[in-house]
Amino acid sequence: MREVAVVGAGMTRFGKWLDRGLKDLGREAVEGALAQAAVDKHQIEAAVVGNATAGLITGQEMVRAQVILREMGFGEIPMVNTENACASSSTAFHLAWLYVASGLYDVVLALGVEKLYHEDKKRSFRAIGTAVDVEKYQDLVKAAAARGRENGGGAAEAAGRAGESRSAFMDFYASRARSHMKRYGTTAVQYAKVAVKSHGNAALNPYAQYRERYSVEDVLNAPMVVEPLTRLMCSPIGDGAAALVLCSAEKARQLTTKPVWVAASALGSGKDPVPGEPGVTTRVARRAYETAGIGPQDLDVVELHDASAPAELFEYEDLGLCAPGESGRLIDDGATSLTGRIPVNPSGGLLSKGHPIGATGCAQLVEVFWQLRGECGDRQVKGGEARVGLTQNAGGMVRDEAAAITIHVLKR
Amino acid sequence: MREVAVVGAGMTRFGKWLDRGLKDLGREAVEGALAQAAVDKHQIEAAVVGNATAGLITGQEMVRAQVILREMGFGEIPMVNTENACASSSTAFHLAWLYVASGLYDVVLALGVEKLYHEDKKRSFRAIGTAVDVEKYQDLVKAAAARGRENGGGAAEAAGRAGESRSAFMDFYASRARSHMKRYGTTAVQYAKVAVKSHGNAALNPYAQYRERYSVEDVLNAPMVVEPLTRLMCSPIGDGAAALVLCSAEKARQLTTKPVWVAASALGSGKDPVPGEPGVTTRVARRAYETAGIGPQDLDVVELHDASAPAELFEYEDLGLCAPGESGRLIDDGATSLTGRIPVNPSGGLLSKGHPIGATGCAQLVEVFWQLRGECGDRQVKGGEARVGLTQNAGGMVRDEAAAITIHVLKR
Repeated sequence: MREVAVVGAGMTRFGKWLDRGLKDLGREAVEGALAQAAVDKHQIEAAVVGNATAGLITGQEMVRAQVILREMGFGEIPMVNTENACASSSTAFHLAWLYVASGLYDVVLALGVEKLYHEDKKRSFRAIGTAVDVEKYQDLVKAAAARGRENGGGAAEAAGRAGESRSAFMDFYASRARSHMKRYGTTAVQYAKVAVKSHGNAALNPYAQYRERYSVEDVLNAPMVVEPLTRLMCSPIGDGAAALVLCSAEKARQLTTKPVWVAASALGSGKDPVPGEPGVTTRVARRAYETAGIGPQDLDVVELHDASAPAELFEYEDLGLCAPGESGRLIDDGATSLTGRIPVNPSGGLLSKGHPIGATGCAQLVEVFWQLRGECGDRQVKGGEARVGLTQNAGGMVRDEAAAITIHVLKR
Repeated sequence: MREVAVVGAGMTRFGKWLDRGLKDLGREAVEGALAQAAVDKHQIEAAVVGNATAGLITGQEMVRAQVILREMGFGEIPMVNTENACASSSTAFHLAWLYVASGLYDVVLALGVEKLYHEDKKRSFRAIGTAVDVEKYQDLVKAAAARGRENGGGAAEAAGRAGESRSAFMDFYASRARSHMKRYGTTAVQYAKVAVKSHGNAALNPYAQYRERYSVEDVLNAPMVVEPLTRLMCSPIGDGAAALVLCSAEKARQLTTKPVWVAASALGSGKDPVPGEPGVTTRVARRAYETAGIGPQDLDVVELHDASAPAELFEYEDLGLCAPGESGRLIDDGATSLTGRIPVNPSGGLLSKGHPIGATGCAQLVEVFWQLRGECGDRQVKGGEARVGLTQNAGGMVRDEAAAITIHVLKR
């Protein structure tokens, strides 16, 4: 397989853009990526577009890539629409990488774009709820509701809240967070510190949805979503787009003196957990490290899937940034802060940069690409000397594990 | 890039399966493909799944591959969800081919699965309508409705019918059919002959949705949908699934003495038509012929995208099976019949085998694979001696051209 480089990236600010559509958001990200790559749209030989919810939210169920890109004057080239829930656009990047790595095309575009905000907010939550096995989930909700009638309504109420799927995912994260506290002595303060760090980083990132700083007290005193998760520990919904231009080594050398190389592009799915065996993130990460010929100790910067604050800690362990149970200490030590040994989510992450789900994967890759090129301004890590970065993106859930995990290792 | 073989295929009968879900349909196709390939599910290293409408029809918007395949015991492997409207699963096959051709994986599964029937049939038509630019289309319908009020309601009525999107596509095909008649003297009888041929072939195909034979008179006297298209000239909606196992040459030689090789896998998109320049099908076909090192004269069997009977004739010309304007004569001559020089749609095609849109692309490939292996029973072409086959699959429409076209050339 051939070496693949990233030579340009662009993204919109993430946020609530009720007056902007998929085409408009997509255009801004793509134009940014083409401009940075110094590539004209006619040089793009194929495009892969990730989006998760447009069917249910905007009514554009099919050929979203073509609808968005034709408007910009792209035509004729192969266009692939892909979806893997919150990992949709890292999957798009993975396929774009595959196009170049295989030798079929030399210059390929990856785009992630999502519009979650809708005047009817229920529609957004309902759409996000389809990142699970809908049929099974409905059975679960019905069963809980039936039990609730017997128990005075408590369980039915819980099922009702879970019916808003953000809470469904948050129920999962909260449950795992409570187990981690019990098993390792992790504290709510440590979870809060993740949110404090993320919001602090986002305050420095012009692309972030939420740019206010918060203290540990602010985070702990925010409204409770599901014990121990307060609202500031949960990723918000949002709209946005992010795009990257990938190309062959030969092309990269013509285009830039600062290529960033894709050292590993690994995708995996969850399976039924086997006690004592590593989970899906660990399995896919090991594969990525092996392909890239590195270990977690070699990473200079990480963007990971902090859909909730505790998730960031679990992923420190899953990615091997620390031993199991040690993630609380890692955040206490400041090792993952912007100036720490291994900065995590310098962008502000899903918690604060925002989480337009189908755009998130590409946005993580955009951030690491810019970090490795030393182009991140106030939030730049390692004084621009970072050489190796990793992104971890998770999508959906079927039974007890993420439906899709992608891990990318980028190197300059 | 490496050589890629197909070593097994499976599919459900297409039809109206109100009591069957995506999982059940998918399972039957996948189990069939694994059985024919003599491959265990644990040998599958990655899976690509095409589906177009489940979000709007069944409510399963995300991670459809994982939901369907986890149920069968697949886990851990990379799973990609892809969509390109009616070309969704030929796009899935294209990506599965890319996985193997690149050298990344040796044994990969491609699956197309779709459930269009719903108790509320309007839901099916509304979902199909999202294979166009929904935003623009709504403007178009509104404008037509406004004109209609001035013109006594006729245009509004037309817009209303067009609001059911099958008719929207059929309006397009009907308009092109009328132009072809005017320009080349093609007749409604010639269009009817396509439907007669397709239904005759489907009568021999146990996987086909409609297995009745019809005469030219039957077809012409069927209810008119849009002049000159009668109901028997239009593809129906349906449910179904089709799957194939792809692998490397080395693996293929271990698994079978009858591999079928993917000689070309080409995907392209429509662009704004330029007068005098070839359309998207011709452009993608030329690319496929060049890659495969063949021309249309080398084809022994073709499965093409006859969403309407006239479309089959247009595609004869677009694929170079005959010169522009000569397609009427080709059907008159019987050249494309089951016993003709170049049999087209021996399966019965979309018209009669059926068109569960996200399953159609893989189903075409399954048919050509089985034809090249001489496994098609009563509908077998060339006495089992066919050596080269082609599939052409079209998806969606943005402005005036198909949003996605895939052309595959298979060789034994």
